[in-house]
Amino acid sequence: MRVLGIDPGLTRCGVGVVDIEPNRTARLVDVVVLRSPADLDTPRRLERIATGLEAILEEHRPQAVALERVFARSDVSTIMGTAQISGVAMLIAARRALPVALHTPSEVKAAITGYGRADKKQVGAMVARILGLDEVPKPADAADALALAICHAWRGGGVQAAQERESAAAPGDAGLTPAQRAWRAAERAARASAGPRTLDT
Amino acid sequence: MRVLGIDPGLTRCGVGVVDIEPNRTARLVDVVVLRSPADLDTPRRLERIATGLEAILEEHRPQAVALERVFARSDVSTIMGTAQISGVAMLIAARRALPVALHTPSEVKAAITGYGRADKKQVGAMVARILGLDEVPKPADAADALALAICHAWRGGGVQAAQERESAAAPGDAGLTPAQRAWRAAERAARASAGPRTLDT
Repeated sequence: MRVLGIDPGLTRCGVGVVDIEPNRTARLVDVVVLRSPADLDTPRRLERIATGLEAILEEHRPQAVALERVFARSDVSTIMGTAQISGVAMLIAARRALPVALHTPSEVKAAITGYGRADKKQVGAMVARILGLDEVPKPADAADALALAICHAWRGGGVQAAQERESAAAPGDAGLTPAQRAWRAAERAARASAGPRTLDT
Repeated sequence: MRVLGIDPGLTRCGVGVVDIEPNRTARLVDVVVLRSPADLDTPRRLERIATGLEAILEEHRPQAVALERVFARSDVSTIMGTAQISGVAMLIAARRALPVALHTPSEVKAAITGYGRADKKQVGAMVARILGLDEVPKPADAADALALAICHAWRGGGVQAAQERESAAAPGDAGLTPAQRAWRAAERAARASAGPRTLDT
């Protein structure tokens, strides 16, 4: 399936398109960071991002859209722009009759790295590994958008959200994806050689 | 000038259209409360409201859109839907090249009633009086949307926001609109006959 992931933002909006096979292998189709200048007013900034998003949807025709779920408890200075972009993205997807799924940052981290509190560097490294890229996609918004798309497909389109959130809270190797097992093994090796780390494995 | 005011919300979105003359008299053109059922997913709810809003813009062709400025410190349970609707409304206005102005609830109250902490009942009563209506528009979202539109025109299209915020904080009768003076006189009369009230005149 082809999934478009969106890391919503008014200044930088990451958009990643990934093809994911039933066996969970994933291939990068495109990744873009849409930007809008801070000196434009908000309506025009939203329009810029919306137009960019529509062009990507038009070009790559994904089957689903995965969007980061934004919480009101997040950083107050950016939350409104993020929520506004999310609304715009959902409207654009709805008007194309595309299913939209929301995933929380910790759901994405858990799906991609096996660890719900992984940092941006770990997520980026794992995204590069999953997609067979030589370098980690930059900026972080790009990697996050790709992670969202992969997470969406791997979680079965978001329908298993409740169960997987539980298993992420008390993880064992059983039920992990190959990528999660690989990551966990790598973490264990790193921990063994570099002393204690703050990971809750 | 013809102004469309929007009190943004996912469950109920108030939309009011008002014609305002240079001498500040105002006439009701239309008022609608757009609704979306809570059992639809958010993208489809946003689409419903967006389609309704576009129909009203198409029908009444306002020259400006006035939107309530949403703060992150507002009620957490509704803030995300409100911000998403705001984003959608701003996008729709931007795509029609319509100017969008944001006014805070206290700016609207100050412009309409002369008192920045007026309650919903006071705002509704004053909106009915300004527009020459026999009844207060219901629900509150309808009255609030009309108040936003009137506020926008009376404040000179939002350009004087900073100055007027100051004068609202330390109000005197000088510089008040006729409606504000009338309201203030009515408040004084009510206070004189009914004993102390919690108004900061």
